[in-house]
Amino acid sequence: MTGIYLTPKALESHRQQFPALANKAYFNFGGQGPLPQASLTAIQQAYEYIQQHGPFSGQVNEWLIDAGKQTRRAIASELGVPVQTITLTEDVTVGCNIAIWGIDWQAGDHLLLTDCEHPGIVATAQEIGRRFQVEVSTCPILATLNQGNPTAVIAEHLKPRTRLVVLSHILWNTGQILPLAEIVEACRSYSTGDQVVRVLVDAAQSVGSLPLNLTELGADFYAFTGHKWLCGPEGIGGLYVRPDAFSSINPTFIGWRGVIKDQAGNPVGWKPDGQKFEVATSAYPLYSGLCAAIATHQQWGTSQERYEQICLLSEYLWQGLSQLESVRCLAASPPLSGLVSFVLTNGESHQQLVTSLEQQGFLLRTILDPNCVRACVHYFTTKTEIDQLIKALEGYIQRSTKG
Amino acid sequence: MTGIYLTPKALESHRQQFPALANKAYFNFGGQGPLPQASLTAIQQAYEYIQQHGPFSGQVNEWLIDAGKQTRRAIASELGVPVQTITLTEDVTVGCNIAIWGIDWQAGDHLLLTDCEHPGIVATAQEIGRRFQVEVSTCPILATLNQGNPTAVIAEHLKPRTRLVVLSHILWNTGQILPLAEIVEACRSYSTGDQVVRVLVDAAQSVGSLPLNLTELGADFYAFTGHKWLCGPEGIGGLYVRPDAFSSINPTFIGWRGVIKDQAGNPVGWKPDGQKFEVATSAYPLYSGLCAAIATHQQWGTSQERYEQICLLSEYLWQGLSQLESVRCLAASPPLSGLVSFVLTNGESHQQLVTSLEQQGFLLRTILDPNCVRACVHYFTTKTEIDQLIKALEGYIQRSTKG
Repeated sequence: MTGIYLTPKALESHRQQFPALANKAYFNFGGQGPLPQASLTAIQQAYEYIQQHGPFSGQVNEWLIDAGKQTRRAIASELGVPVQTITLTEDVTVGCNIAIWGIDWQAGDHLLLTDCEHPGIVATAQEIGRRFQVEVSTCPILATLNQGNPTAVIAEHLKPRTRLVVLSHILWNTGQILPLAEIVEACRSYSTGDQVVRVLVDAAQSVGSLPLNLTELGADFYAFTGHKWLCGPEGIGGLYVRPDAFSSINPTFIGWRGVIKDQAGNPVGWKPDGQKFEVATSAYPLYSGLCAAIATHQQWGTSQERYEQICLLSEYLWQGLSQLESVRCLAASPPLSGLVSFVLTNGESHQQLVTSLEQQGFLLRTILDPNCVRACVHYFTTKTEIDQLIKALEGYIQRSTKG
Repeated sequence: MTGIYLTPKALESHRQQFPALANKAYFNFGGQGPLPQASLTAIQQAYEYIQQHGPFSGQVNEWLIDAGKQTRRAIASELGVPVQTITLTEDVTVGCNIAIWGIDWQAGDHLLLTDCEHPGIVATAQEIGRRFQVEVSTCPILATLNQGNPTAVIAEHLKPRTRLVVLSHILWNTGQILPLAEIVEACRSYSTGDQVVRVLVDAAQSVGSLPLNLTELGADFYAFTGHKWLCGPEGIGGLYVRPDAFSSINPTFIGWRGVIKDQAGNPVGWKPDGQKFEVATSAYPLYSGLCAAIATHQQWGTSQERYEQICLLSEYLWQGLSQLESVRCLAASPPLSGLVSFVLTNGESHQQLVTSLEQQGFLLRTILDPNCVRACVHYFTTKTEIDQLIKALEGYIQRSTKG
């Protein structure tokens, strides 16, 4: 395996910044990334600062405003967008909800989902359908993992009343990357003057793993979290809203952070940037934690360099899995993301496999649809960890076949 | 001042648990409470546990479920309600939004607010009015601080199409406590079989300061935060939904935490308890921090004992303020809450006063409507702090009068 940038020594030194990596072989980056020690320290220091100078004071208030600005700036630099386009949220799901509920739905409108969206988003779409008499339908993207054209599938399912397409940039179940720019272009082409087809992207698996330039990709709404591939703390995420889509949605959950007030404190309008969609008090110390995590990655390399490393390692994992008896990878060729999903072909339970591996110090997860096991690699995963996982899998399969 | 339970020594020892109290005289409990050291330690330990055993693993998942249960239980014990009625949210504003947006609004319905609600809630009501063609109106409660009957004012403003009344249990601007049980009764009496008038309470200032039995009070929805009078970390709050109102609202922002899934992971219904309204990934370590804060208060005394102490101290503050030249308390008699609001009658700027006091180590805040300064006392405030504040105010007024 040539092409890996890091010498084992430099990799080991970088990995030592993540306490969670010390005592296990971690393959759940798509669930939650390990928090760097620098993040934990930054969170701790933020709490101390707030208590020292407040907690509620003019000085702390200025600090919070500044922490929010720095966080939006750090995120914007990762996404290749102006800082004004970023809304801070609790998680990716809230970001998706802001976009979905922000549209002024009319009875008879159409909302299109792919068949690979997260259950929470599917439930949101169903509720939109019920409340506003909106038609909600699903298009079959799962089947395009190894053949077919996802852009064509989506384009075929657009309708004259389609107002929103909801899709994931990287599918959380199979790891497939959707050709986002092409899909956005298909939606733009379908739009008419009266009817714009907006695109909302669930970016839970792409932010922090793919090099991104959202301005070029063209999606209207791009919702993400800081706690997966960015390895920040759980409880902070965000939403990018494309400038020309900014006025197309209204805030739904509303609080003091999104409004402009007059001299008597009455709300008289919305903030003119991404704060328009922010609500109220959040766990501000986490902002420092996320900034520290982003800085940790940037110290290692550019997002392009990190992504190339992820691809090298996921190919290595995919090859190892492909050589195992009773294992079939869902993807017929090496994946272009850090998510590698596979099934046991001997009929053994995936949940039992994951539980057994956890007991041996290998953290993976099951997925229900399609029924599979998912292993993720990040840029700092080691070949040794992958080798050990393959060996553990081999042992498990041998034991279960004997039994 | 007789009646104070604590000897100065016992008080000093209790106060030492709050690092923020060490270097200032703190009067902003209505903005944010000081975090006990035990909370900060619990948060830190939660992060360490999660990283040690995960972050994403079967073991950590069980821990998170348990932490959620413990937190709902600790909150429920403070509110005098069954644990199933509690939804965990990011803050009080999200709790209010869940209730307001959860109603199946029809054009022509009516939503009634008091004139003392927080700007974020006012803005939410305005948006509901715009989106669903709902009539939004305001009733004059502010004027009942010293005379008049708030229940009668609200009752007079109910209409045949009123579906929701939004009010605060303790008004954030004047500290007035509204007679909640009586108001709920007035709304119940006004309801007909077809049209139920629900009551949503913004409990930002009451939870952690008033002894509460929500089952007896009867409100349908009661939204609160952990970071003010409960002195927990910022970023965690909740919503109580009365059991007979549970089915009257639907989730709006939706995620995996609120739904029940079938074997293929498809959402097929809502959780049967308060989790129905929870969304997705939160800052779980804060759950441990809030539990530790609640335990700190309970170790000191019951909620009744804490409230009596707050009243003794706010009366002491009110008396001190009332004796100052150029200061007028908004309340004509000692307040029954920890919030004491006052104005300068010499025309000096309230903001300048607050800024000057902050420089001297006294933390207070301004309020815009009515234009005033607000000082809060908690059960662990000292008479000495109050004496010093009165003296600092006196000095400021003398200097500004000379100038």
